[in-house]
Amino acid sequence: MIHRLAVIGVGLIGGSLARALREAGQVEEIVGCGRGRENLEKAVALGVIDRYSHQVAEAVAGADMVFVGVPLGAMKGVFEAMRGHLAEGAVVTDGGSAKASVVRDAAEAFGGVPPNFVPGHPIAGTEKNGVEASFASLYRDRRVILTPLPETDPEAVARVRAMWEACGAEVTEMSVEHHDEVLAATSHLPHMLAFGLVDALARMKENDEIFRYAAGGFRDFTRIASSNPVMWRDICIANADALSRMLATFAEEMKDLAETIARRDGDHLLEIFERAKAARDRYVDGV
Amino acid sequence: MIHRLAVIGVGLIGGSLARALREAGQVEEIVGCGRGRENLEKAVALGVIDRYSHQVAEAVAGADMVFVGVPLGAMKGVFEAMRGHLAEGAVVTDGGSAKASVVRDAAEAFGGVPPNFVPGHPIAGTEKNGVEASFASLYRDRRVILTPLPETDPEAVARVRAMWEACGAEVTEMSVEHHDEVLAATSHLPHMLAFGLVDALARMKENDEIFRYAAGGFRDFTRIASSNPVMWRDICIANADALSRMLATFAEEMKDLAETIARRDGDHLLEIFERAKAARDRYVDGV
Repeated sequence: MIHRLAVIGVGLIGGSLARALREAGQVEEIVGCGRGRENLEKAVALGVIDRYSHQVAEAVAGADMVFVGVPLGAMKGVFEAMRGHLAEGAVVTDGGSAKASVVRDAAEAFGGVPPNFVPGHPIAGTEKNGVEASFASLYRDRRVILTPLPETDPEAVARVRAMWEACGAEVTEMSVEHHDEVLAATSHLPHMLAFGLVDALARMKENDEIFRYAAGGFRDFTRIASSNPVMWRDICIANADALSRMLATFAEEMKDLAETIARRDGDHLLEIFERAKAARDRYVDGV
Repeated sequence: MIHRLAVIGVGLIGGSLARALREAGQVEEIVGCGRGRENLEKAVALGVIDRYSHQVAEAVAGADMVFVGVPLGAMKGVFEAMRGHLAEGAVVTDGGSAKASVVRDAAEAFGGVPPNFVPGHPIAGTEKNGVEASFASLYRDRRVILTPLPETDPEAVARVRAMWEACGAEVTEMSVEHHDEVLAATSHLPHMLAFGLVDALARMKENDEIFRYAAGGFRDFTRIASSNPVMWRDICIANADALSRMLATFAEEMKDLAETIARRDGDHLLEIFERAKAARDRYVDGV
């Protein structure tokens, strides 16, 4: 049971965590924190949080669990603002989509990564933003990755794990570096392709006509291009090394594919498409 | 009203057309044609077609409307097989996803493109195949593009248009070349990226773990990679020029994006992501 949860950044991710814990009866009081008054008032009206403060130091006071759900670019400032204001025994965790940068931010803000900080990442979300988009079942049957460091307190990890499990999530642990590689492949790279494709089409002549003929497959394929641009700028910069490497490799492969198509090499095309279909049918629809 | 409709290739596309016309009361008899006995028996059992033949010449006999819904690589053979067997006044149309190659196939098979052949393309589909996946509302509120040539009989175009409108579709006309450019951008290129991405991930070490962390966005993004590999090989070859050009350009742009990420140019990234999000929100979700 969490006595007082502080949610720094009451958006889709933080708001859904608050709702899920509330619904599970796992939290007594929830204090929100953010810059926008309107969003926080809405969060109170929706019953997502009980009260709020615009000051991180005030919001974390007396909290036994602190969740930081802000864009990656704002993490360091939040950590700096909470330094010296955390309650004895408080556990801090976050929801950032890249972990090396968050760990670096925490180390810089606190002067070393504190044992009570558990870097985390719930693999869930939609392309919507704000507390109004949040819902209690967002994490149900979704994976949450925790990336504790050697110096992280196992008791703090256990408490963060229990919090996510109370939301219906399946929690796994891996290293910071491995997390960033896996996410570059499964999330960051697809987002770059979706943003890039829609942008390329938007820059074409007669682009309104082009989009008019976009069918269902295109809609699904490009849905993630409606995601928050600021959040994704931050993710790109936070995971720049793994992501730029992977995207450059993929660009090279697409150049090869263009050449395979240009020379009408049907056998090679079929081989690629069959391997891809088999992998997707097996791994993605199978789970 | 169509008296006898011949559907060559009773899969998702042909089967859904048959179901839709049946439901609209716009067809008296439907004759199916294909190679697989099991699929055709199933089509009869499901009430999609009334009877079938494995011979194109037999299936089109006495039909006033012939729909060819086979993979692009099989078009020419079907046209050759129907030559000399069409009824007086019969109209022929198709559902191929690329039009220049179909027109070329028709010209070669018939010795010139016949005035009663109306090249067409319903912009609809799912990643499923076979008559079991077909359903009557597939074309409702979807677009169908017809690409008549100067020599095409306007009366034939009007009949094909009426057929699709009876299925609830919105019919537009454009040139063969323009169709192939538009579809390369909105459909063929996204499919290449989805196939390419899933294939790239499948070739990574520990790929089962990678796929395990693929979240909702990845599922949507890669759904089209579960499409029929043979069909897509044929589309690539049929639209090789437009598609390979577009894919090569896109690969170049992704290489640039990788460099933008590597040098952590947040302003430029934000510009791209904002333009893409605005375009998608405006064009895709708005329609």
